[in-house]
Amino acid sequence: MESLIKLLNQGIKDYNIATKGYQTAEQQKYLMNLGGKRVRPLLALMSCEMFGKDPAAALPAALAVEVFHNFSLVHDDIMDQAPMRRGKETVHQKWNSATAILTGDVMLVNAYQLLQQLDSDVCKSAMELFSTAAVQVCDGQMLDMGFENKSHVSIQEYLDMITLKTAVLLGCSLKLGAIVAQAPPTFANHLYHFGVKLGISFQLQDDILDVYAKGDAFGKQIGGDILSNKKTFLLISALENATGEEKKLLDFWLRHPNPDPAEKVEIITSLYNKLGIHQQAKTMMENYYTDAMDLLAAVEVSTDAKKPLYSLAGKLLHREN
Amino acid sequence: MESLIKLLNQGIKDYNIATKGYQTAEQQKYLMNLGGKRVRPLLALMSCEMFGKDPAAALPAALAVEVFHNFSLVHDDIMDQAPMRRGKETVHQKWNSATAILTGDVMLVNAYQLLQQLDSDVCKSAMELFSTAAVQVCDGQMLDMGFENKSHVSIQEYLDMITLKTAVLLGCSLKLGAIVAQAPPTFANHLYHFGVKLGISFQLQDDILDVYAKGDAFGKQIGGDILSNKKTFLLISALENATGEEKKLLDFWLRHPNPDPAEKVEIITSLYNKLGIHQQAKTMMENYYTDAMDLLAAVEVSTDAKKPLYSLAGKLLHREN
Repeated sequence: MESLIKLLNQGIKDYNIATKGYQTAEQQKYLMNLGGKRVRPLLALMSCEMFGKDPAAALPAALAVEVFHNFSLVHDDIMDQAPMRRGKETVHQKWNSATAILTGDVMLVNAYQLLQQLDSDVCKSAMELFSTAAVQVCDGQMLDMGFENKSHVSIQEYLDMITLKTAVLLGCSLKLGAIVAQAPPTFANHLYHFGVKLGISFQLQDDILDVYAKGDAFGKQIGGDILSNKKTFLLISALENATGEEKKLLDFWLRHPNPDPAEKVEIITSLYNKLGIHQQAKTMMENYYTDAMDLLAAVEVSTDAKKPLYSLAGKLLHREN
Repeated sequence: MESLIKLLNQGIKDYNIATKGYQTAEQQKYLMNLGGKRVRPLLALMSCEMFGKDPAAALPAALAVEVFHNFSLVHDDIMDQAPMRRGKETVHQKWNSATAILTGDVMLVNAYQLLQQLDSDVCKSAMELFSTAAVQVCDGQMLDMGFENKSHVSIQEYLDMITLKTAVLLGCSLKLGAIVAQAPPTFANHLYHFGVKLGISFQLQDDILDVYAKGDAFGKQIGGDILSNKKTFLLISALENATGEEKKLLDFWLRHPNPDPAEKVEIITSLYNKLGIHQQAKTMMENYYTDAMDLLAAVEVSTDAKKPLYSLAGKLLHREN
């Protein structure tokens, strides 16, 4: 793990050097250095190493997904008018929207330039996989925005949306590493679906933590999703399960033009508790996590070789394996 | 020419079908059907055919540059807050900025997906060329926006900017066709620089026509650049050449918070005339055009094979060859 992080950090430094001449170099570097867990590139490197190949061979792919992820963040932040990201000003806030659009555009091109560095025998399939995922991520963001104006969103629609917006890029990262390692296609696909299930599980956890996080562990304001009426798994489940007085209460607070924030969070949370939403979400999250683990188990390499992936998955889902 | 347009139109139809499932399909189709001269994809097809190769082989590359061009238009229009494009509402105006950002993002990915369809022996170099041009186009837009807040822009800075923002994509289109045809690298590079010079010449013509167009030929409001104080070749030259009273007059009208539009256009135009700016711009445009023609002449294929390119270049620069 340490050596992979070192490899990755060096790759990011090299990327910042390679893009130094661009008009958006400052913003690109700012984004790349905001930090974050670097989950996606680590998944790519781990997956490659797992099949006995030098993880350095997957570095261009790992950097490509990290650069792509930052492209999607900088554009999403404009669309969501988010002022902050990881405790710092967003690019459109610190500079302006036009600069943020172009920064993202250049980074999307850069992601392809990184993929072009892969060995020619794996480059084509890596690019095809990546392009499919890239369109899906944009589709997911479009769906997510559409939910705001939709009166009814089903649980299935929600799961489809987070699959596109969040989960496929984790699957893509893992499969890219497997492609570089020229792993058997069955195992590469297992890893893809492992990543997708893990990603859904992770997003469900995120929804749960918005309401039920303890103390500082979450790093965001508790109840932010509740205050913005965000259609998370919890709210969608509540809307599907509430009837009678509970339905009325829920609708009242969702439509309240000027609620007391603490009161709204408290009332919606206790409604979730009454309706058993917390447990329902946890069960769903567990199911996806278990499915993910089954898929990883089905990849026929030594248990030792899978350790880093088990460990990263555990950390992501706040478990220690 | 007719057969190339037919080939291209079919390609655009197929593109619209292939992207039908996307969340941004409607906007993508709207953009692709706004029309325009389709200069870039035609250049790619013509350049391929010129070397005796079936132009259909270059269709994915031709479509890639057209899709990329539309990506850059939809994002530029957001940045420039342009309400109209080719007589129709822009995407961000008709829908919203978030949708327009995502439409562009998906189209940039699509451009790469189209390039991935090229034969594997030319795909890699086509992608490298394309990626370089793509970053340059974004850099050019960034520079152009920066000019608005810059007190002094030199003619060289202006030429560098239009080279990036407009000209390199024409060069890239032509070279892509040559790469697909596996033309000798020297000729492929001649065509690249032919495209770049042609593009600069075309942009200078655009600057001139804003002020000196006759009647309906231009299709835009005369003096639009003057009214918005846009740093075109004409204004930059005027700022460099004006002294004394003329300088004072120019500064007065540039700083006038609420000028009468017709009066401002008239006064600035007569100032351009006094300073010989019209002639200066025409000479510059002619020089780039001549350089372009020399480069095309140096490509060793039959004159007959070059005819379509000569003809398209002539039409672009309002000449009949």
